[in-house]
Order: sequence, then C-alpha cells, then structure tokens
Amino acid sequence: MNSFGNKFRVTVFGESHGERIGVVLDGVPAGLALAADDFAADLDRRRSGARGTTSRHESDAPHIVAGLYNGHTTGAPLAIEFDNGDTRSADYASLADHPRPSHADFVAAHKFHGFNDPRGGGHFSGRLTLTLVAAGVVAKKMLAGITDPSAPPSFPRTDEGVRAEPSSLELCRATRKKSEEQRGNPLYKTPGPSGIEITSRIVSIGGSSDSAQFQGIIEAAMSAGDSVGGVIECTATGVPIGLGEPFFDSVESLASHLLFSIPAVKGVEFGNGFAAAALRGSQNNDPILAPDGRTATNNAGGIVGGITNGNPIVMRVAIKPTPSISQTQNTLNLLTGEIEPLEIKGRHDACIALRAPVVVEAALAIALAQLI
Amino acid sequence: MNSFGNKFRVTVFGESHGERIGVVLDGVPAGLALAADDFAADLDRRRSGARGTTSRHESDAPHIVAGLYNGHTTGAPLAIEFDNGDTRSADYASLADHPRPSHADFVAAHKFHGFNDPRGGGHFSGRLTLTLVAAGVVAKKMLAGITDPSAPPSFPRTDEGVRAEPSSLELCRATRKKSEEQRGNPLYKTPGPSGIEITSRIVSIGGSSDSAQFQGIIEAAMSAGDSVGGVIECTATGVPIGLGEPFFDSVESLASHLLFSIPAVKGVEFGNGFAAAALRGSQNNDPILAPDGRTATNNAGGIVGGITNGNPIVMRVAIKPTPSISQTQNTLNLLTGEIEPLEIKGRHDACIALRAPVVVEAALAIALAQLI
Amino acid sequence: MNSFGNKFRVTVFGESHGERIGVVLDGVPAGLALAADDFAADLDRRRSGARGTTSRHESDAPHIVAGLYNGHTTGAPLAIEFDNGDTRSADYASLADHPRPSHADFVAAHKFHGFNDPRGGGHFSGRLTLTLVAAGVVAKKMLAGITDPSAPPSFPRTDEGVRAEPSSLELCRATRKKSEEQRGNPLYKTPGPSGIEITSRIVSIGGSSDSAQFQGIIEAAMSAGDSVGGVIECTATGVPIGLGEPFFDSVESLASHLLFSIPAVKGVEFGNGFAAAALRGSQNNDPILAPDGRTATNNAGGIVGGITNGNPIVMRVAIKPTPSISQTQNTLNLLTGEIEPLEIKGRHDACIALRAPVVVEAALAIALAQLI
Amino acid sequence: MNSFGNKFRVTVFGESHGERIGVVLDGVPAGLALAADDFAADLDRRRSGARGTTSRHESDAPHIVAGLYNGHTTGAPLAIEFDNGDTRSADYASLADHPRPSHADFVAAHKFHGFNDPRGGGHFSGRLTLTLVAAGVVAKKMLAGITDPSAPPSFPRTDEGVRAEPSSLELCRATRKKSEEQRGNPLYKTPGPSGIEITSRIVSIGGSSDSAQFQGIIEAAMSAGDSVGGVIECTATGVPIGLGEPFFDSVESLASHLLFSIPAVKGVEFGNGFAAAALRGSQNNDPILAPDGRTATNNAGGIVGGITNGNPIVMRVAIKPTPSISQTQNTLNLLTGEIEPLEIKGRHDACIALRAPVVVEAALAIALAQLI
Repeated sequence: MNSFGNKFRVTVFGESHGERIGVVLDGVPAGLALAADDFAADLDRRRSGARGTTSRHESDAPHIVAGLYNGHTTGAPLAIEFDNGDTRSADYASLADHPRPSHADFVAAHKFHGFNDPRGGGHFSGRLTLTLVAAGVVAKKMLAGITDPSAPPSFPRTDEGVRAEPSSLELCRATRKKSEEQRGNPLYKTPGPSGIEITSRIVSIGGSSDSAQFQGIIEAAMSAGDSVGGVIECTATGVPIGLGEPFFDSVESLASHLLFSIPAVKGVEFGNGFAAAALRGSQNNDPILAPDGRTATNNAGGIVGGITNGNPIVMRVAIKPTPSISQTQNTLNLLTGEIEPLEIKGRHDACIALRAPVVVEAALAIALAQLI
Repeated sequence: MNSFGNKFRVTVFGESHGERIGVVLDGVPAGLALAADDFAADLDRRRSGARGTTSRHESDAPHIVAGLYNGHTTGAPLAIEFDNGDTRSADYASLADHPRPSHADFVAAHKFHGFNDPRGGGHFSGRLTLTLVAAGVVAKKMLAGITDPSAPPSFPRTDEGVRAEPSSLELCRATRKKSEEQRGNPLYKTPGPSGIEITSRIVSIGGSSDSAQFQGIIEAAMSAGDSVGGVIECTATGVPIGLGEPFFDSVESLASHLLFSIPAVKGVEFGNGFAAAALRGSQNNDPILAPDGRTATNNAGGIVGGITNGNPIVMRVAIKPTPSISQTQNTLNLLTGEIEPLEIKGRHDACIALRAPVVVEAALAIALAQLI
Repeated sequence: MNSFGNKFRVTVFGESHGERIGVVLDGVPAGLALAADDFAADLDRRRSGARGTTSRHESDAPHIVAGLYNGHTTGAPLAIEFDNGDTRSADYASLADHPRPSHADFVAAHKFHGFNDPRGGGHFSGRLTLTLVAAGVVAKKMLAGITDPSAPPSFPRTDEGVRAEPSSLELCRATRKKSEEQRGNPLYKTPGPSGIEITSRIVSIGGSSDSAQFQGIIEAAMSAGDSVGGVIECTATGVPIGLGEPFFDSVESLASHLLFSIPAVKGVEFGNGFAAAALRGSQNNDPILAPDGRTATNNAGGIVGGITNGNPIVMRVAIKPTPSISQTQNTLNLLTGEIEPLEIKGRHDACIALRAPVVVEAALAIALAQLI
Repeated sequence: MNSFGNKFRVTVFGESHGERIGVVLDGVPAGLALAADDFAADLDRRRSGARGTTSRHESDAPHIVAGLYNGHTTGAPLAIEFDNGDTRSADYASLADHPRPSHADFVAAHKFHGFNDPRGGGHFSGRLTLTLVAAGVVAKKMLAGITDPSAPPSFPRTDEGVRAEPSSLELCRATRKKSEEQRGNPLYKTPGPSGIEITSRIVSIGGSSDSAQFQGIIEAAMSAGDSVGGVIECTATGVPIGLGEPFFDSVESLASHLLFSIPAVKGVEFGNGFAAAALRGSQNNDPILAPDGRTATNNAGGIVGGITNGNPIVMRVAIKPTPSISQTQNTLNLLTGEIEPLEIKGRHDACIALRAPVVVEAALAIALAQLI
C-alpha cells in the first residue's frame, strides 16, 4: 500500500491538488541533526524550471511537523509536509471523465469506482515524488553518518586510556547537558556504516547518450507538442559488504520495489543488466582481488547473491516519455463510452527524466536505509 | 513501530506539545461518506471536562488533509490531523531531567539517549490517543456499512428482474454522474459485514463496581492529591462468524496488541477472562444452539480458537490510576544521579478511565477492520 | 496469519493428525550453537504424562531440517519439524459434523466452508504449541547470549592492549579455522543483551492459589469427567532498559499478541494488572531509586510506556479449563442443523494449565527476541 | 527476509545440500483441489536434462506435508517439501574458503561470519527456486479459478429463479456431504478473477534473438568451458482491471521484488521498458479504445500507474550467464588472503536461462496472487 519498509518505514499521503502532501518516516534514529534547510539541495534538483519541465511553481518548503526537537530527531516518527499552492484544478475539469492515455486516470476511476480525486492525477501524481525526495534526504543522512569533528563526544576513558562505550544513561546525560549549553551540535556519531554516498546522472535522452544533444532533443519534442524519455544511472559508493537479505529482501529487490513505485519508471537493471544476458560467464564474472572484496571489474553492479560486495552499487532506470502531450489524442469518454478527441491543457514536463535523478537516488537511499 | 495493520493500516505521529499530531489511514475503501462532523461524538467522549479529567482544553477539531474528495473517501490514504493549541510547556521544564514515576520519561530518555521530546510526555503522551479515536471513527464506519435507503443504487436489472452486480465501470459512471447532480449521497453500500456496533462502559472505579459511587471515589482521590484506576468493558454486536486468522492473528491477538498500545492499559481479558481460570469446563463451555452459531452462554466472549463465533465480542480492560499525582514523590535526577523530591504541576486526569471507553472501542474497531 | 514478527519471524504449519508439524525461524543470528538436545528440557515440560494431562504420547523429537551446519546456525532460516506419531483419528470421526462446544470446530468449518481438517482440531490443535516451544528455545538462546569461557575469541589486540573489534572477514576466517580443528565450540558471543532469563510458575488452579491443593482439585475434576483452568505467572529477569517500540510495538502489545495465539488463553495482565485498576496512583506508582532504573516497587511489571525499565518483567496469563470433557454435552449437527448429545472420546488434558507454563515462556521469549 | 507477501505469504527454507528444502504458503483459500501431480508440469520445465543444463538429477517430488485434506486445501498453511537427494558435497570441499567469482560465496561468508553453509551455495543455491516454482503452481491455480463444469454447486434458488449466494454454513454442509460421496471434486469456484494465464518464452540467448541459433550458441560456450546468458519474456493474459496498489505496491514493484530474488536476474522491464526511454510520448502512449480498457497498442505492458489496465502484462527479465564455468579463474583464499587459481568442479548449467522461464512465471504468479 502506501507504506514501505519494516525498519525504516516510509508512509506517504496526499494528492496533487489537495491541501497538502506529506510523508511519515518511522525508524529514524534519535539524535540526527536535521533542519528544513537540509532538504533544499535535493528539493531544488527535483523542482521544475529548466526548459522541458513544467511551469507549475511550488515553493516546496518542507514543514517538519513531528519528530524533531531542538534541531535533532527524537526517535519518534518524523512527519514532513508540503503545502500545495499553485494548483489550477480548472485545467483538469474535463479530464475527470476523459482519462488521459497512459496515465493512471482510467485505472484509478475503475479501481475506486469513480471516487478517486481526478484533479492533476490525484494521489497518482508525480507531485508525490516530493515526499520520496524528502524521505531520501533523511535516508542519505542515516547512510552518511554524522561527522562533526568540532564536537567530539567526550565520555570517560578507562584506565587503559581507551574510550569506553558510554552507557545509555551517560549518553542521555551528555545530551541533556549539551542541549542546554550549545544546542545544535550533534552529540554522537550516528551508528551505522559511514560514508555511503549516492549520486546519479542522465545517461541518455530520447535514445541518445550524447549529453550535448539532450537539450536539442527535448526542444524538438516540445516544438512538436510531444515529450521524450530518458535513462538515469545511479551509483552508491562507500557501501559496506553484507547489506541485503536472502531470499526476498535482496538489495535489488528492495531498490526495484521502490523504483517501480516512481511514476514513469518502466525498467530497472543492475551492473551490466540486460547487456549481461548477451555475455559469456568468463566476460561477466568479477574476479575478487582482495580481502576487502574489491573486484577487477564491477559487472555485478556491487551486488552478488542479492547482497552488497563492497564495490559501488550501479543501476540504471528507464523513464518513459511524459504521457501528457499537447498533441490531440483520442480517448474514451467514461460517461458515454464514446471515443473522443482529447486536448490536455495543464502544465507538464516534456521530459520527466530531467527531474528524476534525485528521485531515483532517494529510492536507493530508502532501500539501503532498510538494511543498516 | 508506529504503524499497525496490513489491510487497514494506522500510522500515527506527533507529540503532546508539538505543532500537530496526526494519523494516516491506509486501506480505507473508496466511497465512504465522511465529514469532519462525523468525528464529533467520539472526540467529545474522549475530551476532558468532567470532574476528574484534565483542565487542558483542546478544540480537537479534526482536519482531513488527504484522501477525501467531494465528501467521500477516495481509496488513497486518509490523513487526519489535529493542531496542538493549549500547551503549557513551561510546566514541564523541570521534568526533562526528573522522570515522573511510572511515566515513560525515564525509559524514553534512555532509549533515545536524551533526544526525546520531554514536553508533556512527547510522543508517549495520552494525547496521541486522539489519533486512535479518529481512526476508530473511520473503522466503525467501515464495520457498520453505509445505509442510506433514500439513495439506492439504480443499476440495470437483468431480464429475470433481479439486479445484476454492476461492473466496475458502471459504478464509476454512476458515481461521476451522481457527484455532479447530488453530491454527498453515498452511491453504494460499502462491502463488508453490515451492522457491527461497538459500545463500552465503565464497570469499576477504584475497585468498586457500584456506579453510584464512582464520582465520590474520584473526588476523594482528587482531594488527596491522588488518582484512581478503573475497568472498561467493551462489547461488539452484529459480528459475523469467521473473523480472525489462525495462528497469530486471532481477534484476541489483534485487539490486545492495540489495547496494550494505549497508555495506562495493564490488563486485557475476553469473555470470562481470568474468572475462567477458576471454573470447570462444564461451567465455562458454551453449548451451540443453532446453525447461526448462537450459544446458550457467552463465556468465550464471542471468540473461539481466536475466531468470532457470531456471538457478541465482550472484553474488559484494566486502566491503571493516572501516574501524575499532585502529591510530592521522590525521583531520580538524571543529570546528578541523586534522588530528589518531585512536584508534578501540569494538568492531569485524576481518573483516565473516564476518558478511556471511546479509546478502547477504537482499538477494537481498528482490530476488526483488519479482518473484514 | 501464521507468521509473527519482522526481525525474528516465526512461521508455523501443520495439523494435529497430519504427517508433521513445523516451524520456520527467520532472523536467527549466524553462529548460535544449537543441537536437538537443546530442546529436550523445554519439550519435556510441555509433554504430557502427569496426572491431568493427556495420555497421547509423542516422542516430540525435534528434527532440524534447515539452517544448521556444523552445529551452528547459519543465518539462513532455521526449520524445525516434528513427526506426528500417536494419532487416533478414528476417535474424531464423528466430530467432523458435531463441533465440540468451546472448541474451534464450528468456526473453522464455517470459515473454511467445511474444507478444514477436523481431525484432532487440525491446525487449531494445542499440538501446534509444540512449535512455539521450539521457537521459544531458540529465542531464549538469543536472549541469553552464548557464554563459553573455555573458548574465548582470540583476535589481535591493538597497541594499547585492548581488544579491537574483529572485522567481519577476521571473524569469518577464525570460524573457518576453528571449524576444522574443534567443531562445536561457539566462536563468539552472540550480540545482544546477555542474561535475560525467563521462568514461570502456576499461581492458581481452579481458583485456588494454594499449590498443595492443585493435585486434588485436578483429580476431583477428572473424577467428575470435567476439567479445570489455572493462572500462569511468567517472569523475565536481566532485561535491559529500552526494549519495546512506541506506539504499537510495546512489549505488552507484542507479548499479548503472541499469548492470545495460544489456545485456551483468555486473559493477560502485566505487573499489578487488573488489581491496579482498584488502586490509587500513590499506591501503584514505582519510585525510581537509581540510575540503573531500579524501582522501589515493581507494580508496572517492568514495563512503562510500553518499554522495559530494567526491572523484571512480570505477567500473568489466564488459561481456561480444557473444553474437551468426558461429560455428555449437547451440540449442533452441522449436516442436519439438529441439536444432539455429544460424547467426546479422544485423549485430553483435564488441566491444560499444567503444560502451559513453558508455552507462555516461549511467547514472551519470542516477543523479546523481536526487540533486541 | 525469507518471506514475501501479506495476503499470500511465501516462506522458503533449506540449503542445496541439506536434508530438504521447503516452502510454506499462507493465505491459500480453502477448497482448492490440489495433488502432488499438479506440480509435475512446471517442475519438469525447471528440471535439468537438456544440453546446457546441469547433470545433477533430482527427483524433485513435491511432498505436501500440511494444509491439505481429502485432496483440497484447508485454509491452513500449505507446506511443500523436497528432499535433497543427489548431492556431491565433496565437489565443494575446497570452495568453502575459495569463493567462486560472481557467486554469493564471498558475501555469505562475510555476512554470516563464516557460519554459512557453503556446500553448493547453501541457502543461496539456485536449487531454492524449486520452492518458488511450487509456490507458483499454487498461485497459478488461485489466479485461474477452479472450473469443473461436471460438478456445479447446487444451492437452493430463490423464487425469482436466480441462484442465491449460499451461506457459509450451507457451503460447509455441502462440502461435508460431498466429501463423503464423491471426494476429489471441487465444490465451488474459487473466488477471484478467473482466467489469468501466465506463459513465457526465451527471447534471446547470448545476444541472439534467433531461436534457431540458441542451441549452437550454448554448445559453443560449453565447448569453451564457458556459459551464456539470456532474456525471458513473460506474459499474463485475462488480467482484470485494477490489480495493484498505489503507492508502493504497484504490480511492477511486487513483480520486480520477486524477480530480483531469483539468482542471476540482473534486469527487469515492463512493456517497452528501456526502449520506451528512446521514444516520444506520442509513440509510447496507448490510446484507450473501449470501456473494457482495451488499448490500440500495449506499450505499457498492461500496467499504468502501477495498476493493471486490462491488457496483457508483458515483462522481460535479463538472466546473467552462469557464474560457474569450467575455465580456471583466480579468486581469493579467505584463510590466507592470497589470490589463487580456482577450478570449479561440481555440475552446473551452461545456460540457466533455459530453466528460468517457469521460475519467472512463478514470480509473476506470486505477485498477482497478492493482489486478488
């Protein structure tokens, strides 16, 4: 349904033209330094603005309404909400009974017997990916660990001169004291693997892998009242050996589960992916070079037997062309059962792939945060 | 964690003195007529006001921010939020490092290393039961079915003169048409068992089962700066045979799981409960009287083998006395490790049991809504 | 359904008179020393034999068919099975259509449209608690930690003379080497809290708490062709502070969820339980005495706000009298709808409470194993 | 972990060279006619034998040990087991410390600190897909519905001459009676969508889509002591509109989650998949033609917004070349940390893709069985 995960649980709600959308994150460790500003960079990357993206402008200011106290997560659920501002529902009036081809309108009307909110795609809108990006920001923080060398924890040391693990109560006391003197400094390094970093890039648009042509391809599609797809590559480095669970909770299973939740994703591959199917074993195998798991090649994309092997995770995601196009299309009139021409107004991206990389990163970050 | 259920999933968030608290309900069927007013009766029953309840006054107005369109649920997650208004965090300033006896303060500080929100108990506050009551209102609607004889569905009939089951698309069309003409009338009866009704009553206060004495017992405790406990009995009628799953998802398992999530609940029993342990089998067995499952007695409280048997579900819940009392108590100073006297200010209930019945009903309603 | 838990998942299968019953345990850490003999003590405690227990004799030999290698758990699912030997299905022939009062026969026939296996109660049989006890043995091992002073891990030490945490690969190497030289010795201490110990006792039979009278009460019931109930108290010591999750996964929620899965359990209470409802706050509160969480009293039964507070967990469980009695009872003939006299043959316990303590312990152990 | 699904839950256990492997299926409706023979066809398709498949011969006889009574499922968990017969663990002796490149050996040793069962890949072995195929057989039955025109249910009809829905007890009675007279005939049509049929085919081997060349490509690889990959296409027809849940439980999410659990799967795409990323929206959109959801093209592969649209589901899955090859490869000695040459003995498939189609079908069937 609208939740994912057992250890780091993401629950989303909201509709494109409703009052607000939001995400509840459960399983976030207490003591993670977090502020609304931390979301800015990733939200900006998702925001529209470039040629080829929608002209709908949302402030997209995250509102942390629960789970945060004195600038740190509390261990209780973190709730982050976004107001829906610049909506023009009128654009969608005629769409309620004229499902847009290759959108969820038709299946939503069926499945929910016509009670679904049709405005802007309702709950099926790409706007909901905003909540995934917000969840991704928190997941990335969990994966990166907190590193603040200026504020090291200062717990008593043992006779041997080596720092003893502080007790739970010592940690508590230190936090209480610290929060009175110098709020905002994280007390301790978040447990978990430090240093997982996730990046992504567009590797092709409209079939071309020459990035110099991307802008031209998109503008040509726009001029024709059309749209165009693309492929995103996402990489995670600093991944420890051993993330992922046999049998069903492989890293690939969890990541693909989340990726196929993103509207417009139609393909996912890891490492050589579909290309591996054309190779021989001697070409596709990755010889192990050292006890740290380093391999001579990374054809597996960092995942073997569903489990990370210490090499970078590499995956590619196919994004279909935006189904909303300006060209007139035919569709069914749900009320009459007749086929009628449809002109989609609204404001849409000519190439969703431009905004998708940060959403793809979020999906991978959420999947990995399950496993640490 | 902070979610419960696979088919009807309840996710709660918020803190007593945070900006707002909320609940996300997933798995609510589309087409349920719902308005903020529907919550009034149950929220009123939980609200403070009577002698023995806290003087904190909240408007407790439910704000449905997602999942509702044209007065009906959409099939997408329903998000209901409540603003926190009348908070006096100053009352709690000294409590951050002086955990109140038999409250969650001490364990929360430990578990979350001092990062928990201590104001008013934070996420552990009884205020969170507001979200359970809201979830219970929706669950009760799901259990009751919609009955609006004035607006019967009018689908085509077959030649034989008997109404054919409408197709998904016919339902969709009828909804679309209806919503333009006559919004607010439910189109169809919600699927599921109709007629489950849940009620509850206080069966004892401070050890007395004489309801005429309840008020006196509570006032005596208040005069002494003290508090008092009670027992709630909750009954569900109109329950079909067969709800509940072997092995682990018995009705008793799901209901008790939810009930023990309610702060102050320390005991749960079904049917004869603890009294059954003192009986012989010939006294405790319930002879079946008819094919509808009716039994001569209902010692089982309507549940056999973890599954409903068509008789009323009967359960009792022990509510401990409010741990916040006006009398001075000793407690630990978390920062110094010393034992110090503690005076709890704030505003508290002398007898939480007075407000608990509607929360207990909500827990049972949520459990049953999992199973239909 | 028939699984419980996200981190330590217990899945049961089988019927009373089928070929075998079994349990799959997922989330068991690798490296736990385990042998069939480890189950003997707890299985013996559940086995029949004493006066008042059934004369059905099963060898109850656990068969570990997966997840074990060289005497240690592997990290893969542990599957433990038990053959069903001494079954007399003929005793149950007439019961298929004559549901025994206060047994699951009637609801099972309804729920599964008559396709349920009625022999000996089928999947609803108390025999299934054998799988819970087996799961409990493993859970108790996880809770206790492995302590084998004769075989300390011998990993390199740092310059400062303090043992460094071995890397995953160092652990792996040591295991491989050890297993060649000296199989059967555990290599390392299982992570997790060490020293949780769970015990239980019968606190009342047939309403009497005088253990000297228990045997007489049971024999009197047997002589009358009747049965009798009892109450079990279960205690866990060595519990660390902080187990349990807000909101829904309180220790009480998880434990009661499991306890109410056990056939014949009709009531569960923690600490003072129902007695707390008769007390004032000043009587029921537990003053904290020291930074380790020790309280002057333990009225809360070691759980506050749903989370362990470092004091022993104490709970009591009501077991109803065995519904199978020798006295003739009336019941429904499912085929005719008539009420007819029923004589239950088979072999049954006059007092299930005698065999229940180890099952109650298992339920608590499984619940706690979720939380470490 | 080793379970998947909430409504139709699949739990697997076992190791390649252990005593037996098995699968527990929960959520199977009562009354499904099932026999060991029903598994034969699919198990045969997975079995080795053709050129290019392993010479290990297993009888692969399914042993249904629980959940079946009188030839029908009972509603209790269905447990199906397979003995491991023809194992040659000696072949794997040297592999315990010499992880095979691109196998799970290295990550398993790390993750489980050397306690994993290394024989034949242990729990990571492709042999475990046998349990998926068995689960798939049951899932396919659930999806197909039972159609036995010779044994229609014969419940009383109403005055209007139209068959009334039988009550639960009527169904129960009819089952009981039927099972005495004429066992083996299903009583009623399984609820759920009837007629989903799942098929699959190999669309390329070693990069070639010309099926006439497949055998030659495989034999050339074998001659070179090498292996080769392939691509499987899987199609489901008869799919009703509306399967799949927003947001996270899209059909694509659930199917890919399961598919990436299958060893050797490295890519999954639906409809046009990666090819869609090279198209324009006007090329990739599927115009709706009729109220039943039929579209002019099926570029979406039957899934829009994560939900089925009534057209066939079409997906393709990339299978990497078998990592076990006869050529000498270098690998790490886990004990010494040195790189050493490795010769893999054992018996392996030169082209796993030959045996994969029925496993891919099973994954899709299990995913869809979640959603009905």
